[in-house]
Amino acid sequence: MDALSALRQRLAAIADLNGAIATLAWDQETYMPPGGAEARGRQLALLGRMAHEQFTDPQVGRWLEQIERDGGTFAAGSLEADLLRVVRHDYQRATRVPAEFVAAMMEHSSAAYDRWTRARPANAFAMVADSLERTLELSHQYAGYTPGVAHPADALIGESDEGMTVAQIRPLFAELRAGLVPLIEAIGARPAPDTTFLTRHYPAAAQLAVGMECAVAFGYDPQRGRQDLTHHPFATRLNHGDVRITTRVREDDFSEAFFSTLHEAGHAMYEQGVAAELEGTPLASGTSAGVHESQSRLWENIVGRSRGFAEHIVPRLRTAFPQQFADVTPDIFYRAVNRVSRSLIRTDADEVTYNLHVIIRFDLELELLEGRLAVRDLPEAWRERYRRDLGVVPPDDRDGVLQDVHWFAGLIGGAFQGYTLGNIMSAQFYRAACAAHPDIPEAITRGEFATLHGWLQRMVYAHGRRLDADAVVRHATGGPLTIAPYLAYLDAKYRALYQC
Amino acid sequence: MDALSALRQRLAAIADLNGAIATLAWDQETYMPPGGAEARGRQLALLGRMAHEQFTDPQVGRWLEQIERDGGTFAAGSLEADLLRVVRHDYQRATRVPAEFVAAMMEHSSAAYDRWTRARPANAFAMVADSLERTLELSHQYAGYTPGVAHPADALIGESDEGMTVAQIRPLFAELRAGLVPLIEAIGARPAPDTTFLTRHYPAAAQLAVGMECAVAFGYDPQRGRQDLTHHPFATRLNHGDVRITTRVREDDFSEAFFSTLHEAGHAMYEQGVAAELEGTPLASGTSAGVHESQSRLWENIVGRSRGFAEHIVPRLRTAFPQQFADVTPDIFYRAVNRVSRSLIRTDADEVTYNLHVIIRFDLELELLEGRLAVRDLPEAWRERYRRDLGVVPPDDRDGVLQDVHWFAGLIGGAFQGYTLGNIMSAQFYRAACAAHPDIPEAITRGEFATLHGWLQRMVYAHGRRLDADAVVRHATGGPLTIAPYLAYLDAKYRALYQC
Repeated sequence: MDALSALRQRLAAIADLNGAIATLAWDQETYMPPGGAEARGRQLALLGRMAHEQFTDPQVGRWLEQIERDGGTFAAGSLEADLLRVVRHDYQRATRVPAEFVAAMMEHSSAAYDRWTRARPANAFAMVADSLERTLELSHQYAGYTPGVAHPADALIGESDEGMTVAQIRPLFAELRAGLVPLIEAIGARPAPDTTFLTRHYPAAAQLAVGMECAVAFGYDPQRGRQDLTHHPFATRLNHGDVRITTRVREDDFSEAFFSTLHEAGHAMYEQGVAAELEGTPLASGTSAGVHESQSRLWENIVGRSRGFAEHIVPRLRTAFPQQFADVTPDIFYRAVNRVSRSLIRTDADEVTYNLHVIIRFDLELELLEGRLAVRDLPEAWRERYRRDLGVVPPDDRDGVLQDVHWFAGLIGGAFQGYTLGNIMSAQFYRAACAAHPDIPEAITRGEFATLHGWLQRMVYAHGRRLDADAVVRHATGGPLTIAPYLAYLDAKYRALYQC
Repeated sequence: MDALSALRQRLAAIADLNGAIATLAWDQETYMPPGGAEARGRQLALLGRMAHEQFTDPQVGRWLEQIERDGGTFAAGSLEADLLRVVRHDYQRATRVPAEFVAAMMEHSSAAYDRWTRARPANAFAMVADSLERTLELSHQYAGYTPGVAHPADALIGESDEGMTVAQIRPLFAELRAGLVPLIEAIGARPAPDTTFLTRHYPAAAQLAVGMECAVAFGYDPQRGRQDLTHHPFATRLNHGDVRITTRVREDDFSEAFFSTLHEAGHAMYEQGVAAELEGTPLASGTSAGVHESQSRLWENIVGRSRGFAEHIVPRLRTAFPQQFADVTPDIFYRAVNRVSRSLIRTDADEVTYNLHVIIRFDLELELLEGRLAVRDLPEAWRERYRRDLGVVPPDDRDGVLQDVHWFAGLIGGAFQGYTLGNIMSAQFYRAACAAHPDIPEAITRGEFATLHGWLQRMVYAHGRRLDADAVVRHATGGPLTIAPYLAYLDAKYRALYQC
């Protein structure tokens, strides 16, 4: 067998190991009983170590060298050239990190996550403080494996949003904040829309059914996926034929499950849309956290909270919830689901303030990593930043520092910036799609999403990691990442909506 | 590290791999969408191959030799002695089978299972005939790896019921048949009890809740398990802290989910009861198919279909299903759930005729393996045997040859005898438990199961594979396997019930 075939066979086995890991992790967060936590931690550590060992095996390095020596000059843009570029990149990155570290990190993550699931309902930051200290140590240790980083967070930012650094993101976030602050002030001076219908009683089963119906209408394939309940919604790729979404339901809050379903469906359609020929290689996934988030936010916000979608969905929701929606017009729905408020919970935040939540977390991560903030002081630092930036103070840690899973299921640094990068890109992609197909907004009012889904499928989804974030933005929009379309979108939408 | 510690570390990793495999298999049979089947087959094959390679690694043989050389004479009955005996036995068996064969077999099983899930509703034996041919080939190939077997089925019978052979089982089954035939004839001459209340409408959610409630009352720990829906109910050990049961529900048939839940809970309590100190070794599971089935049948039939349990459960069922149970007394319930009829479906069969279903399958397996029956003739042979032995003919293959998962998810031979061996043992165990605690039958009428569960926990569950089937029967009952208590139990119960 030639070196390329041998390499591909190895990559396919690693992909299957990773698919098994994804299945175990999905089960851990959906159905696993409490008694299973200890063994599941060991299992995830074991399989993670195996996948890491299979990939960092010196034989992989020898195959890569052999392919190069054999004159492996594949045409730029060919599948082989893209595969080898990404595998070389990943191999260099992975061989910097010892297998023991990866195993220890995975085992720690699993235990930390398990603690968090108990600490959050108990409002007990003390239950996770020790494990968060350890997470911070591991994050520094991880950064230490990455040569030439200017900031310890850069190692992890580079993992999720390749090429981005603290030095680049800080000014980008400053520009965004400068655009958002006057908009939020102007909105704050106007009366808030009525949202009372959203907190009527909505039976869980009907909510799940209508959410899934929308996801399928958007283009999510239920033969290659499913929806289940969890604490903190996520989408996960088990393999090309099995990309699952999860949600949580509150019977007294229609928005919770509905928009989380549209959001996770956006992630899942991206993964379902990766070209089948990439399966069994590291190319078979979304290309970065930012691009991934652009897809979830595009479907959740730009489509799901648009005036046109309200036209389409309100009559349907009136069928599903005749009493609860009896007095709800598309206009009432549109205003309610776009209510801007200075709130506590990131995942519940509106489009406009959302980015401030992200920026607070991003800054706290940097402070922790820079040693300017101790873990024990984190709850108070959190409260102080919310008071200062959003004018609200969490009454407890449950809705404060314990609200997001990220720091309790992974490392610290690089976990949040992708959300705001995604928001920025989502507006760029949508503008480009509408430039190519000006009928898209009108189609949305009729509940037709195939043109938009098809454009995203061709321009974004299909490429997987063959195009990196910068390349996919350029391929799909004809230019580099720019903040202008996002600010213009927010400005136009919210100044009209709030008449300000 | 000494050889024993090194061996135990390896065994713990293999146990975690097997736990991961069990999780993937559970997902495959409960929640996995159709699109996931292909990758899941590959993943199960990959992990199965890894577990097999880890265990058949010559290093394991060297550790075993080293322990022996170091004078590893552990006291008979010590954990170490039991562990080494079982590991040596398993190692010898496993090293006879090449890793490629195991991988091919697992991949084939997964594909065959997937076909069966589609073939059965379509009533299309032709869809599975080819894969069944291949299963038969693989079964012969497997038998070929076992030296000195008198019959090809002995290799597989030895896997599930160590020490048993075709030569021993044939006369045992003949003795049983000789006892059953006159009893079934006598019952057949009497009027059948009224069972119409069982087929009233029972909402699925309430059925699942009451079934789980009974399982928990018996002793099933829901913090270390859960119940989900599947095609063909099973219990599965993911690890010591996570032993799951599955069921299927028919809203027009109360018996289906209720008794399958009691049955699977019996299997699951056995696995949950294996001593925690055995986790991470091959000792941490039920000791044989027969002993396993004895636990499921004991709880399902000897307890669950007893007069005393009817006293306890009918008032509870009347609360859960006030209209459906309005006119149902304990006596009506007891008679209905013990109705004897010559039926088509093994899993629905009553206690008395059940063993004839097993014997038909056992005989057909032998005929296939002996080359006296071709796969293409199997549906007709099935119909003919049912006509001859039970006086009923399946109208289609769905309720005929396609009804059981076993031949479509594993090899042929050794899949069924355990059910009847289990029935035989269940009566032996129950008689011994009542000899030790004569208050057990009375406690059951009060819904108290702790004495029985505690006795089984101590005498059967805790030992896992430390005691083999013969040893656990002797340990718990004071004597060898014997058919007399089972025949006496059936005779006394059904002659009183049918007044014959």
